[in-house]
Amino acid sequence: MRAEILSCGTELLLGHISDTNATYLAQSLAAQGIDIYHVSQVGDNQGRVVKLLQQAWQRSELIIMTGGLGPTEDDLTREAISELLGEEMVVVPELEAQLQARYTHLTQSMPQRNIKQATLIPSAQSIRNPVGSAPGWWVEKDDHILVAMPGVPHEMYQMWENEVVPRLAKYTGGLIFTHLLRVYGLGESAVEERLDSLLHSLNPTIATYAKSDAVDVRITAKAEHTEDAIQLVSSMEEQVRVLLGDYIFGIEGDTLASVIGKLLQERQQTLGVMESLTGGMLASTITDFQGSSNHFIGGIVTYSTDLKVQMGVPKETVERYGVISEETARAMAHAVRERLGTDFGIGVTGVAGPDKQEEKPVGTIYIAVEGPEGTLVGMGPGWHAGRADNKRYAVLTALDLLRRYLQGILTPQ
Amino acid sequence: MRAEILSCGTELLLGHISDTNATYLAQSLAAQGIDIYHVSQVGDNQGRVVKLLQQAWQRSELIIMTGGLGPTEDDLTREAISELLGEEMVVVPELEAQLQARYTHLTQSMPQRNIKQATLIPSAQSIRNPVGSAPGWWVEKDDHILVAMPGVPHEMYQMWENEVVPRLAKYTGGLIFTHLLRVYGLGESAVEERLDSLLHSLNPTIATYAKSDAVDVRITAKAEHTEDAIQLVSSMEEQVRVLLGDYIFGIEGDTLASVIGKLLQERQQTLGVMESLTGGMLASTITDFQGSSNHFIGGIVTYSTDLKVQMGVPKETVERYGVISEETARAMAHAVRERLGTDFGIGVTGVAGPDKQEEKPVGTIYIAVEGPEGTLVGMGPGWHAGRADNKRYAVLTALDLLRRYLQGILTPQ
Repeated sequence: MRAEILSCGTELLLGHISDTNATYLAQSLAAQGIDIYHVSQVGDNQGRVVKLLQQAWQRSELIIMTGGLGPTEDDLTREAISELLGEEMVVVPELEAQLQARYTHLTQSMPQRNIKQATLIPSAQSIRNPVGSAPGWWVEKDDHILVAMPGVPHEMYQMWENEVVPRLAKYTGGLIFTHLLRVYGLGESAVEERLDSLLHSLNPTIATYAKSDAVDVRITAKAEHTEDAIQLVSSMEEQVRVLLGDYIFGIEGDTLASVIGKLLQERQQTLGVMESLTGGMLASTITDFQGSSNHFIGGIVTYSTDLKVQMGVPKETVERYGVISEETARAMAHAVRERLGTDFGIGVTGVAGPDKQEEKPVGTIYIAVEGPEGTLVGMGPGWHAGRADNKRYAVLTALDLLRRYLQGILTPQ
Repeated sequence: MRAEILSCGTELLLGHISDTNATYLAQSLAAQGIDIYHVSQVGDNQGRVVKLLQQAWQRSELIIMTGGLGPTEDDLTREAISELLGEEMVVVPELEAQLQARYTHLTQSMPQRNIKQATLIPSAQSIRNPVGSAPGWWVEKDDHILVAMPGVPHEMYQMWENEVVPRLAKYTGGLIFTHLLRVYGLGESAVEERLDSLLHSLNPTIATYAKSDAVDVRITAKAEHTEDAIQLVSSMEEQVRVLLGDYIFGIEGDTLASVIGKLLQERQQTLGVMESLTGGMLASTITDFQGSSNHFIGGIVTYSTDLKVQMGVPKETVERYGVISEETARAMAHAVRERLGTDFGIGVTGVAGPDKQEEKPVGTIYIAVEGPEGTLVGMGPGWHAGRADNKRYAVLTALDLLRRYLQGILTPQ
């Protein structure tokens, strides 16, 4: 089955937004083993939309449209599909009642022009939209399927996952089950190298994605019954876990901050941090996890050396080894643990850039994690990345070091 | 002149990356008054690229391609253009020498297949690429222009701005000059409302963009001579400044953090912060500005009430008014200013969510800025945004309050 994506909206052609809907759909189609050869963006112009639809109808069996389902005159997707197929739009009383109910619920009266959101053509069925006013269209005709969904991303995601993917199952050879593993400490190509023997598997498929905080490994299986798909994914997951081991820190929506947060809370332990290089980003990332006030006591951003000393880092340590040193990172972790009375303390120092410091190059990073069983230390890559990347790298490496401490992967000394 | 964009790369069709190149180019074309009706993404398949090029040749006078200029077999843009126009690729000695020089400089030997990066067809001129190995192609034939640029964003941006936009000047009716104003404290629609009388201007044009840290207003003028374009922009800028006043905090690459950083450094003054709600994000944002160690002494992330008291917030204040109160924000600003000995202190407290605190709803934010002339206070919007948005909003509002303090826009008490 050959698919293509057609995204409608003049805002796309003006560069006001990027077409992230297409990216999302392309990922999902690839995971389902559906080939996709074309993606296009077009403005809110019925003639041009129809022309593109005609082309798409010739070269693809599955056409996925987003956008243009709103109530205004600019929203022309329904009209374009009607013109393409030579079918007339008629108001469907059931859809009209649902639309009216929505407005009653919002204690507003429905603008007359919105009635077009309650229409269908003979070849179309409506697709439920639980979070917005515009139902989608599922069109089947002459061995083609055309799906029209809203352009608002969260409406589209829900409709796609809950309504469209299940309906596509019978065309793609079964139901889809997908599972995500999150990896830290290996680059995307190193992950692919380790997974080399599995990457060509056709069912389940495996795909890797480099994200800013991890490398994601997505396993997707297709089967006639959900249980079989789940079984396929789970035996593939076992193999992936053997190859990637401890580098896997979580699944689905996990972050390093949520993983260490949950581990600390299970153990009823607390955390404090002292950071210079990362300038507050370590504390901020820890507090992105919404339950963090249960384990995170606080942080000290010691951007000046005087403040480090004021907060308990021995002056001798700084003078003897320099601010940018493993010893100072250790002293910071120790000082904040003492001062805040926490079970764990993290210290991070280094050179964010753009200039070197104490003759140490940009990208030099020292991290120490002190806990009840001793201290673990980590070092930065030493490569010269940008300031923002150095900060982010140091934050993630510090959190991963704490995770390895808490999970007993590394033994503190 | 009608333009379209064609982005080549299988990674786009697999959803590995979003086509942000197209977004960038669309913005620039809109600013130059060039109409754009189609954007398409296609994989690394010569047949399909040629087919799309044939279509584009029929419906557009300017075709802008990105991607497919690398040295590998997957890189097929040159081959596709040659096939489209029926012209043969020939190695150009001058380009070959440049390519060789690049490898000599890197002390590597050039792989033989890379030679195709030194080719042209008779209708094509090469476009200089100072940051990468692949020159672009500028093709003129039969009243059409076709531009092929690398897909790597920073290579493409430079080539577009420095080489392509100037060459397009004679087709777009002149040279382009553009200027960006950055606005904080008004939403995008409020900015557009204030600029209503100017938004329909055709030369200069004005466009607004909602960014995560500001609303950007871009003024773009076209003229035969640069000086005239600059003059047009500058008189429009005057009018915009009258309508937006103090809400404009900077231009081009400025951020609130860079603006307050420069103001403090001019005055040789220093800053410290105490934050709970924002969890370190305020300090982190301040230190994103690369010169920040000259004015930023440090920050204290007092996620627990005990730590607030330990760091100098009077226990009575917290007990009497609650942690989430203007009084506590004031006490935090005062305490950090005293403790760190800085000229300015900022205190931020509030409810980030997802749960309310002290019976105060998510989105409650209190900010205090204490300086030599007294204290300014700010409050949060009170609306229930997500946790990340509440943090971001509080950080930006705190920085903007300090800016207004430093610029004498608001009078502290």
